[in-house]
Amino acid sequence: MTASDSPAPAALQSPPHPYYNQATHGPYELADIGDLVTDSGATLRGVQLAYVTHGTLNPDKTNAVLMTTWYSGTSKIMEQIFVGPGRALDPEKYFIVIVNQLSSGLGSSPHNTPAPWDGPNFPQLSIADDVRAQHALLTQKWGLSELALVVGGSMGAQQTYEWAVRYPEMVKRAAPIAGFARNTDHDRFYGESLMQAVKSDPGYAGGRYRDLREVEAGMRRHVGIWAYMGLCPEFYRHQLWKPLGFASAGDFVNGFVAALFLQMDPGDLMCKASKWQRGDVSLQSNGDLKAALGRVTAKVFVMPISTDQFFPVEDCRLEQQLIAGSELRVIESNWGHFGLFAVEPEYTTQIDRHLSELLATEV
Amino acid sequence: MTASDSPAPAALQSPPHPYYNQATHGPYELADIGDLVTDSGATLRGVQLAYVTHGTLNPDKTNAVLMTTWYSGTSKIMEQIFVGPGRALDPEKYFIVIVNQLSSGLGSSPHNTPAPWDGPNFPQLSIADDVRAQHALLTQKWGLSELALVVGGSMGAQQTYEWAVRYPEMVKRAAPIAGFARNTDHDRFYGESLMQAVKSDPGYAGGRYRDLREVEAGMRRHVGIWAYMGLCPEFYRHQLWKPLGFASAGDFVNGFVAALFLQMDPGDLMCKASKWQRGDVSLQSNGDLKAALGRVTAKVFVMPISTDQFFPVEDCRLEQQLIAGSELRVIESNWGHFGLFAVEPEYTTQIDRHLSELLATEV
Repeated sequence: MTASDSPAPAALQSPPHPYYNQATHGPYELADIGDLVTDSGATLRGVQLAYVTHGTLNPDKTNAVLMTTWYSGTSKIMEQIFVGPGRALDPEKYFIVIVNQLSSGLGSSPHNTPAPWDGPNFPQLSIADDVRAQHALLTQKWGLSELALVVGGSMGAQQTYEWAVRYPEMVKRAAPIAGFARNTDHDRFYGESLMQAVKSDPGYAGGRYRDLREVEAGMRRHVGIWAYMGLCPEFYRHQLWKPLGFASAGDFVNGFVAALFLQMDPGDLMCKASKWQRGDVSLQSNGDLKAALGRVTAKVFVMPISTDQFFPVEDCRLEQQLIAGSELRVIESNWGHFGLFAVEPEYTTQIDRHLSELLATEV
Repeated sequence: MTASDSPAPAALQSPPHPYYNQATHGPYELADIGDLVTDSGATLRGVQLAYVTHGTLNPDKTNAVLMTTWYSGTSKIMEQIFVGPGRALDPEKYFIVIVNQLSSGLGSSPHNTPAPWDGPNFPQLSIADDVRAQHALLTQKWGLSELALVVGGSMGAQQTYEWAVRYPEMVKRAAPIAGFARNTDHDRFYGESLMQAVKSDPGYAGGRYRDLREVEAGMRRHVGIWAYMGLCPEFYRHQLWKPLGFASAGDFVNGFVAALFLQMDPGDLMCKASKWQRGDVSLQSNGDLKAALGRVTAKVFVMPISTDQFFPVEDCRLEQQLIAGSELRVIESNWGHFGLFAVEPEYTTQIDRHLSELLATEV
């Protein structure tokens, strides 16, 4: 893979997608990293990674931070939630690169890739494919050989773990937030159920739908599952939808959860869900998780969310205990996994405190 | 409603259902309780309740125990799990009546009710409909005016709460296990998702399927949701499927969860899921839960399961605190809601200890 800036291929150009576009998610850049041979044995040609940068790379190239993205998010929400002057991820101190994962809708994704890899023919991807693609971008475009921090939530945490295991010499610090190094059976069944909700819609047609409306029923079932698994009993117990101006819990699910997901391309989501479900750093060590996490040399803060329904604290703790010198930093939230959206000011305070401390740690 | 023993109507007779039959769930009796006017405004004529009794009613009729049933269970599994000599529910001491809920598959249910109330035309039921039907049976058939205990798990807990609020003069003690007096939004969304998994199957055809195989895809999605919500992260973390002889978590889901549900009638399940979802004793007090639970005069042990994903301890505690003189007795289990199946011997020990203590309490 060789990274170069290039005009987007035809499929990434007009007409602009009503959701995956510069107006909604930009400004972002596209880099062509060349061919990507996937773990599943496909060759994606001219792979485009969508990314943004904040701040300036210092002369000795030691202040780069890589931020990864989650299932429902692009670089835009990561910027909004994590980056800013005076924040832990301060662009006046760090050169922050946020790379949108493959199939995020920005950059190479099923919905915008030309035949024969279009839509349902887009290859099955792995978290490792993303990390190798990101590695190509960072090393070739900026000549980076060191990352002060890799940080990401949920699927972004999976990529963070993959980075720390795959390129230990490069990753100085890592902060996986609300995610696993190796997926559990419990979470895998959850992911399978999310995928089945969409794929079972006759309108999905094996990914050959022509319009989002054709898959709306399946996408609403997908939303309906997020309603109780993405949030949590505490969220509804305390009616945390109320301060947001919703009239009822159902009003919140439609106005917040459905409003978010129904804009997205179902095929892009399915490709990501499949990656999520199979995320497993132990594949690098013949299934030996202890051996894989034993390779990590970064200083790691494992940061689960206290009420997460599918990345629960205890499972995160068991992984954390396999990483030398790591620390468990539980984020208290009543929003479940959706704590990630940082609607609560206390969430942001905790994230910043832990990331600041991690970044201040000598390694 | 007047209770009388009567031959089953034609629809309850031959050919015997491959699952809902005396060989699988019996021996059980059928009682005709006459007409039931449902909360939804239908008149079900000649309603049949399927029940079993254990033990003998004492002369002053003070030793009757009512046991209710849950979503996936009939009186058979309740017997197996709860009743026996030397157990808390000892037939040598108590007259134990286990009544299968309406739509359980035994007794009046969508699949066996004649037109015009057949299948998808079967009325929407409420937990209160069940409790009024059970009240008719108990008062008319045995002249009961007192129940030493009402006990049930999950939907059986909903019925237990409904009994304690609706007929406080009759219920001396109550033990709702792993269930709510009023359903939460979180649990309601879970129930909705379970229903959508089945109803979205084109083979379900609005309940007009001719054969279970036509709805298998939807029923398997329903199973797929139970896999992570009925069980829990702890179950998979500790690989508790292993001692049962399964080769993997997936093998367990198919061999245990699917094996259970795929025998059942989808329409009967949907009718029950709808009841479950809307369970709410506060409907008796214009939506005032505190007022409704304030009517309870029974001694109540509220018994949530420690790892339950949709009837979590904290929500159960909040209800318990509204019941005068009640106690919270948490059942420790790593099986989540499916702790109810009593696969763990420690589960049974705890249940028996609490029920024995409750039954020994003077009221």
